[in-house]
Amino acid sequence: MTPKENKENNNDGAFFLRAKPVDIQTGHPWEVIIHYEDGKTYDIRAGDELTLKWGQKKTEVGVNISKNIIKPGEIGLLQDILDKFNIPEGAVVELKLAPLASSLVCIQKKLVGRHLSYESIRAIISDIVNYHLDDVQIAFFVASAFMKNGFSNEEIYYMTKAMAETGEMLHWDGIVADKHSIGGVPGNRTTPLVVSIISSLGIKIPKTSSRAITSEAGTADVMEAVCAVEFNIPQIKEIVDQTNACLIWGGALKLAPADDRILKVSYELGIEPYSKIVTSIMAKKVAMGATHLVIDIPIGPGLKMHKMQEALKMKNIFEYLAKKFNIKINVVIEEILGPVGRGIGPALEIRDILRVLSQADNRPLDLERRAVKLAGNLLELTNKAKKGAGETMAREQLKNGEALAQFRKIVAAQGGDGNLSESSIKIGEQSYEVKSATSGIVKNIDNLKLIRLVRLLGSPITKEGGVYLNKVLGEKVEVGETLFTLYTTGEQRLTLTINELAKNQPYLIV
Amino acid sequence: MTPKENKENNNDGAFFLRAKPVDIQTGHPWEVIIHYEDGKTYDIRAGDELTLKWGQKKTEVGVNISKNIIKPGEIGLLQDILDKFNIPEGAVVELKLAPLASSLVCIQKKLVGRHLSYESIRAIISDIVNYHLDDVQIAFFVASAFMKNGFSNEEIYYMTKAMAETGEMLHWDGIVADKHSIGGVPGNRTTPLVVSIISSLGIKIPKTSSRAITSEAGTADVMEAVCAVEFNIPQIKEIVDQTNACLIWGGALKLAPADDRILKVSYELGIEPYSKIVTSIMAKKVAMGATHLVIDIPIGPGLKMHKMQEALKMKNIFEYLAKKFNIKINVVIEEILGPVGRGIGPALEIRDILRVLSQADNRPLDLERRAVKLAGNLLELTNKAKKGAGETMAREQLKNGEALAQFRKIVAAQGGDGNLSESSIKIGEQSYEVKSATSGIVKNIDNLKLIRLVRLLGSPITKEGGVYLNKVLGEKVEVGETLFTLYTTGEQRLTLTINELAKNQPYLIV
Repeated sequence: MTPKENKENNNDGAFFLRAKPVDIQTGHPWEVIIHYEDGKTYDIRAGDELTLKWGQKKTEVGVNISKNIIKPGEIGLLQDILDKFNIPEGAVVELKLAPLASSLVCIQKKLVGRHLSYESIRAIISDIVNYHLDDVQIAFFVASAFMKNGFSNEEIYYMTKAMAETGEMLHWDGIVADKHSIGGVPGNRTTPLVVSIISSLGIKIPKTSSRAITSEAGTADVMEAVCAVEFNIPQIKEIVDQTNACLIWGGALKLAPADDRILKVSYELGIEPYSKIVTSIMAKKVAMGATHLVIDIPIGPGLKMHKMQEALKMKNIFEYLAKKFNIKINVVIEEILGPVGRGIGPALEIRDILRVLSQADNRPLDLERRAVKLAGNLLELTNKAKKGAGETMAREQLKNGEALAQFRKIVAAQGGDGNLSESSIKIGEQSYEVKSATSGIVKNIDNLKLIRLVRLLGSPITKEGGVYLNKVLGEKVEVGETLFTLYTTGEQRLTLTINELAKNQPYLIV
Repeated sequence: MTPKENKENNNDGAFFLRAKPVDIQTGHPWEVIIHYEDGKTYDIRAGDELTLKWGQKKTEVGVNISKNIIKPGEIGLLQDILDKFNIPEGAVVELKLAPLASSLVCIQKKLVGRHLSYESIRAIISDIVNYHLDDVQIAFFVASAFMKNGFSNEEIYYMTKAMAETGEMLHWDGIVADKHSIGGVPGNRTTPLVVSIISSLGIKIPKTSSRAITSEAGTADVMEAVCAVEFNIPQIKEIVDQTNACLIWGGALKLAPADDRILKVSYELGIEPYSKIVTSIMAKKVAMGATHLVIDIPIGPGLKMHKMQEALKMKNIFEYLAKKFNIKINVVIEEILGPVGRGIGPALEIRDILRVLSQADNRPLDLERRAVKLAGNLLELTNKAKKGAGETMAREQLKNGEALAQFRKIVAAQGGDGNLSESSIKIGEQSYEVKSATSGIVKNIDNLKLIRLVRLLGSPITKEGGVYLNKVLGEKVEVGETLFTLYTTGEQRLTLTINELAKNQPYLIV
């Protein structure tokens, strides 16, 4: 018996308090405030966990104590719980000291190195989704994945399946293509290009993306510069019906919702186990109903994956899972030095994308090459193109303008301007050209330093902020020539970034 | 680079808000509330962590967001932080997005199986004490102790040393005796007896104890039935000067304060690694300045330690650490079936203790035997008694009344009644005798079920609540004879407990 169970038994009966909304948003879910006197009466202390019941709804909440904010007999409900449950003021809620989540025993087992059954893993994931496990308990679960022989392939499969099945799941007819890049390369915005190419050929590709995590902006942040990215499932169905595609933020849906909570605690640690990264991606693909999938793993200094060996390990897990879920998969590993494309930051990246789609002379050829490669791969995987003919087919869709037309159609379906072009993209009016002090060749562009600058310029929140690379890797530079240009909306941010340049110059000229 | 670092760099400059006290106690330390508008201005979200600076004082705080509780430009400071820092209303505090704790890298290393240096472990422990690591991050650290070859003996030593040194440390002249029981045995209240015996012989034994964790009551809870147990260090020095001893709550001091935070997250998991239990005990002993120590490890069903093998493992770690810290140690392992003594609950246990001290006919002989054994051990360890003569010397202090006089002296020094006797102890006026339905021998008393009943009767908060065992293990029972008696203060609690009896009868009569 644990202390927590003891305490529960000490308060066998439930007690009742009247709801009172309190306008505080906490970031850690489900906090309530009870009065000091009630705390004494029911032997509840600050930091305890209670099970709160209101009608059929039930959740666990953390307890705060106050003498003034609320009165005895009341329970202050904070914003996050109100948003979810809509409990009206004065409603009577039932409270009870929370028992330990039953799946905690499974986490304990995993921590001491035992193999878990599907039922056990499903119980853990389900308790995560339903807030029966708190962040500390989830951290113990994530920690178990770091251990030698932490999770077997079978357990990774169980976890992926459970994560997908405890959230929303989409179903489509026929082929559903998808692509995913393991992030970290600035400007590597191939997704809108791949999606436009693939869907212009009549293949369904409903694409959910993330916002910035480790990069300067996520695909969702970038698309948001030109259209909405938050939709519910019926709206997504409609967009896909119209265009064969969508380019939306996955976070607004409830796809594999356990992942968000797991991500939050991994983020606190600062590193993730491989198995977690793969599970997280695959669970969302399974939930999204993907049948054909290309995974892009860029490797290089400053990226999520540093070494070929790590990437190959990850590839193996992806292929194992894809087989289990009956998804056709292609994992592409490519070494990437420096950024891809010239624009870094939402608006600047969309401008690059439109330059590629309109085949402008000043389009970034490296971005085009990567997008064509991934799209070609996906075309071959879906048997739309013969083996070896995928890239030619993909490139043709760029040349004949169909990919551009398709991109505009998607933007319009998502509430944006269906006639947008390179020149209609607004770039930050505050700018500063960084000149080269030496002449030579651009030998290196440090991804991490570059991302830092782009963030300082306001990306991804300030859509117009970012860096444009006037010179890219391998190009010749003369003294006084512009290396790169800073863009943002406020003078203060610009000054801040210029000052940062003294410490962090991303270019190496040799 | 991790996302969190990114974000910090995105907000290089600090910002300033005016302090406003908010009457909420959270249980998770250091929460603040900022206004929604300020959150937007400074790109701070609910759940973010900030470094708060006020003069020379500095801490990390979790962010809550509100539109009404406070105004723009203000920062709501919750009770826990106000209690520590005493920041006056209207004071201007400096805020900044908190960087990742530098010791987090050490936790990451430990999680992937690396050996840590003293400097690394010290950095982790120091960041725990100073709230630079949050509960989730501490959970990852605790989790690493579960791994195969998780912590080497050397790392356990480093951890113990760092835990002791990051808190208050007491220094005394000469021999400082101490004893510690690994808990879980109901009624096993040997500490007040051992302390009285030892100190009556002129040996210093400043004893700190815990409150109830897994048991029905801790020694601190029990002593609180007859005197105060919370003192600061100068007060403790004074009590020890007067009596050679003290019997106080350790939690009121700042001995090895990292342990409290680590305990909190282990408690959320529900199990602890051995290394954690030993480290936790030894760090407090080192901080308390102990030179001679007897550790009592009871093993048995329903106790913290179930098997001899586990207890021996623990004994080895204790002995290793004691050698490192130059503490003379004796680890006593004894199998215990059922409870010890007859009274279970603070007042009932103090009554048992006074019965032993006054050598009353109805004193619990098993409690006496265990106390004499441990005290004898300690007398031999400190060379007060010759090898083999310790128990006789201890027993003599009971017989000649010096231990009783000494106990009264300690109680008086801690603000209690220096003339207290068995009859002056108040027992709950609500009582209920549980009769036997069969005749036979008391074959088993289930510790966990017994603890549950005692807790239901209000222990440890209701000092007068508890169970008195009219029959103990091995005794003969006739039909209708009283097996045990419930005591408490309120009728409701009594009824609740009587109802519980239908499900949980701790006695087995065969």
